[in-house]
Amino acid sequence: MRAALALARRGLGNTWPNPAVGCVIVRDGRVVGRGWTQPGGRPHAETEALRRAGDLARGATAYVTLEPCSHFGRTPPCCDALVRAGVARVVCAMRDPDARVDGRGFTRLREAGIAVEERLCEAEAQALNLGFVKRVRLGLPMVTLKLATTLDGRIATASGESRWITGPEARRAVHRMRAAHDAVLVGSGTVLSDDPELTSRLEGTKPVADLRVVADARLRMPATARLVATARDIPTWLVTVPGHPPSALAPFQEAGVDVLTVARGEGGLLLRELLRALARRGVTRVLAEGGAGIAAALVREGLVDRLAWFHAPGVMGGDGLPAAYPLPLARLSEMPRFLRVAHRALGADMLSEYVSEGG
Amino acid sequence: MRAALALARRGLGNTWPNPAVGCVIVRDGRVVGRGWTQPGGRPHAETEALRRAGDLARGATAYVTLEPCSHFGRTPPCCDALVRAGVARVVCAMRDPDARVDGRGFTRLREAGIAVEERLCEAEAQALNLGFVKRVRLGLPMVTLKLATTLDGRIATASGESRWITGPEARRAVHRMRAAHDAVLVGSGTVLSDDPELTSRLEGTKPVADLRVVADARLRMPATARLVATARDIPTWLVTVPGHPPSALAPFQEAGVDVLTVARGEGGLLLRELLRALARRGVTRVLAEGGAGIAAALVREGLVDRLAWFHAPGVMGGDGLPAAYPLPLARLSEMPRFLRVAHRALGADMLSEYVSEGG
Repeated sequence: MRAALALARRGLGNTWPNPAVGCVIVRDGRVVGRGWTQPGGRPHAETEALRRAGDLARGATAYVTLEPCSHFGRTPPCCDALVRAGVARVVCAMRDPDARVDGRGFTRLREAGIAVEERLCEAEAQALNLGFVKRVRLGLPMVTLKLATTLDGRIATASGESRWITGPEARRAVHRMRAAHDAVLVGSGTVLSDDPELTSRLEGTKPVADLRVVADARLRMPATARLVATARDIPTWLVTVPGHPPSALAPFQEAGVDVLTVARGEGGLLLRELLRALARRGVTRVLAEGGAGIAAALVREGLVDRLAWFHAPGVMGGDGLPAAYPLPLARLSEMPRFLRVAHRALGADMLSEYVSEGG
Repeated sequence: MRAALALARRGLGNTWPNPAVGCVIVRDGRVVGRGWTQPGGRPHAETEALRRAGDLARGATAYVTLEPCSHFGRTPPCCDALVRAGVARVVCAMRDPDARVDGRGFTRLREAGIAVEERLCEAEAQALNLGFVKRVRLGLPMVTLKLATTLDGRIATASGESRWITGPEARRAVHRMRAAHDAVLVGSGTVLSDDPELTSRLEGTKPVADLRVVADARLRMPATARLVATARDIPTWLVTVPGHPPSALAPFQEAGVDVLTVARGEGGLLLRELLRALARRGVTRVLAEGGAGIAAALVREGLVDRLAWFHAPGVMGGDGLPAAYPLPLARLSEMPRFLRVAHRALGADMLSEYVSEGG
């Protein structure tokens, strides 16, 4: 099952709206087929593994990280494929929370005479599928908040200079994070100050799989931004509030940017509504890369599932731009705290990773 | 020699104005005596080790982390003691930078027919003795800047609440740091907001060995502060600028606080002058514990030899009090950067330690 989970992990960031699944088929103690969800969410992991196993699947055991689907989606149900291939036993890490499956896959397999075992390595599978589970259960994607600051929590000098606070190893780690998420989210301030492309420039991964999302209540993003210029090649969504005249939106739409509107709150658009809109469109995993307004809102609203903090070994002083705007906090006991799950050195920088105390 | 260095380390923080030295005496492959500089700087490590070795020192090898002294200070010269004990060979990690020794110890030993080897583990010995070397060579103590902040670099809420940002493991580590330094330095703002005692409350170490130093140009420290109330028991120095009327200083002096004056700079007293004044009085190792004014000045002036940063796993937001006031920086390339030498988890918190890029 651990091998199947490792295969599933390969799909993270490019299987949405589908979950990233891994499958290993074993016969007589030998692996005869391996598969994982392919980019775009199909073929499914089981289909891939069965194809590779061929006739060897007959009488074999299939280890699958998620309950095989029992309904017709964009592909025929995997349950039927497992039955047809003559698999004798299916071991699964977790049930599919999708209401169209949710145990029906197991029932169908058992009805066909296949032995089914559930919940092997379930905790790992739940963590791996957090984005998919949240989308299906709560209508929200999983959110990783990534910040790269000095030791004293600054993301740029008073004049806005931020290139580069962290070193090349940390930046490569950010590119790997982008590749493992469905979408990268930034505020318009980040677009104005950095004019980023937000692509994943790693060898062997396709930047084309990325989706860039800009939260921009006031339409501050210039139509000349790189995100707009590259919108025909890489999906780019501009999320704003209702009420802007069509003429203000037209330049973005003409450049290929998809414009979404969500409800307005006190401080601009409601990030929870933005995330709901992304989940409705199938997004399961969002990497939020700032700026300070987005970071503060996500932390304040308890929307951060995972926190990845890069600390560069420098001290900038109190006039540097803060990582997060005021939440604000009335008391120290109200401060959002996280649980550390990992920490490591990346060149001169440190990366520490956290999960929300609730998660 | 590593054993001798480990012994030397035991003395750090309570041998000033003397260096912390370790000595191991070996005869026929067996350790026959061990010693380290005792509290207050005497007896010296060699005296201690020779006393324990007794007659077994005859013909033995002495491993010493610093060149044995050749002059009469508060104790008779260790060179003479080594000669008298009949030691055959002395292995030393580094030369004593004190102008009264500086090679004369080696000469004296060699003249007495003792074989001398120098510079074994010299880099470790130099790092260990940084405070003593700086005091002797530059007239400045070694400075460790310690900060305990949230991930976003905040030391307190907007209302000044700071107890507790970090957890008990981190606080215990701070107490160990205090014990390994000669003096703890804070600004008057920290006294006003936290009213700390700045003692090292660890079992087996004596808070009495501590020295507390308050930088307070404007005499903002209240005479009711705990530091003042405990000044008769634990040495407490108030460092201010010239020109205050004697009546303003009297309450402190009457409580047992030693008042020093140093030159005034633009932003209050000059920290470099404060450190020089401490070194003149023999202080070799200073732990600066904030606040944000002291931290910014030390970083800006390049006075930080070692940086110890505790990061608690919380996000406070931009209205929290910053770890360091504006340096200020005109360009990112001017930002003071440090070299990481260690990082580890302490309960829920992270500690990362750095040395100055120059050091």
